[in-house]
Amino acid sequence: MDKWKTLEKKEITRGKIFRYYDVKRQSPDSGDIGNFDVLSFAHWVNIIAITPEGQYVFVEQYRCGTDRVTLEIPGGAIDSGEDPLVAAKRELREETGFTCEELIHLGTVEPNPAFQTNYCHTYLAKDVKRTENQDLDPYEEITIHELSENEVREKLMSGEVNHALVVAAFFYYDNYLKN
Amino acid sequence: MDKWKTLEKKEITRGKIFRYYDVKRQSPDSGDIGNFDVLSFAHWVNIIAITPEGQYVFVEQYRCGTDRVTLEIPGGAIDSGEDPLVAAKRELREETGFTCEELIHLGTVEPNPAFQTNYCHTYLAKDVKRTENQDLDPYEEITIHELSENEVREKLMSGEVNHALVVAAFFYYDNYLKN
Repeated sequence: MDKWKTLEKKEITRGKIFRYYDVKRQSPDSGDIGNFDVLSFAHWVNIIAITPEGQYVFVEQYRCGTDRVTLEIPGGAIDSGEDPLVAAKRELREETGFTCEELIHLGTVEPNPAFQTNYCHTYLAKDVKRTENQDLDPYEEITIHELSENEVREKLMSGEVNHALVVAAFFYYDNYLKN
Repeated sequence: MDKWKTLEKKEITRGKIFRYYDVKRQSPDSGDIGNFDVLSFAHWVNIIAITPEGQYVFVEQYRCGTDRVTLEIPGGAIDSGEDPLVAAKRELREETGFTCEELIHLGTVEPNPAFQTNYCHTYLAKDVKRTENQDLDPYEEITIHELSENEVREKLMSGEVNHALVVAAFFYYDNYLKN
């Protein structure tokens, strides 16, 4: 199957975290022409961070989309031109104050290829230590939790932790543990 | 941690698959007031469908966000007022022509609680059979693939299958298999 041909791309508006385009494309198979929503985002990173004691570092924060407080792994947007691994170390440090020597790339997902342009890279940070204070962005209010392996598993299966990018991160982590 | 208070909600524009709002909210902790992007979507379903021969039903289609052809499990939007389980059976049937008696709920994720309002429910469909023809929406062009267990695992780990909602679905599926 071949990809569709882009005939027109028009910026509709800019949000605070995306640019919204209307894109006219044509199927090479059927010849059909349609207009589609495309949201251009920065690429993202997230990090499964584990202390030497085997505790997992989670962040509790209010989320505007679902209008509720969530429990997630640390993560955020990659700055323009920034290496994903550098971004992962930075986001971990800024959101939690935890740092580490080495990061292991676990996997990379497309958050939603249907309408989003971006990727999310997942890293594993082992033996993280709290060496700094949080350095939060405007409107970021984050409470840090250190959860045991059992607590993480229970919250993933009960749905208390249910961010798709976090669940996907643990898919890769479980496969990393198998090898 | 308490959720933020909504002070104003203004519709900026309507896309084809979402409504885009600018929402002004106030933190109960700091008193900070900020404006945030919120995209209201229909809720979604996706389905891990397996034939009596143990083959997994995947759909190949062009995706406008990342501008490439992807390999995913079947899925789609829940119609207004539709039961998620009914939507899952319908999307499986429409996209692939495969049907089944029973669906098992594996898990429910928030695709992105930071700015999206919706949920995605994942189901397992065992012993699916191709009893009907595809019944595709406008601009849907889908090629069906039946993949072996080994092929699915190889494509998940190589990144050929990398839609976050599909990867998350397999996290729940692997945990279902453990129990």
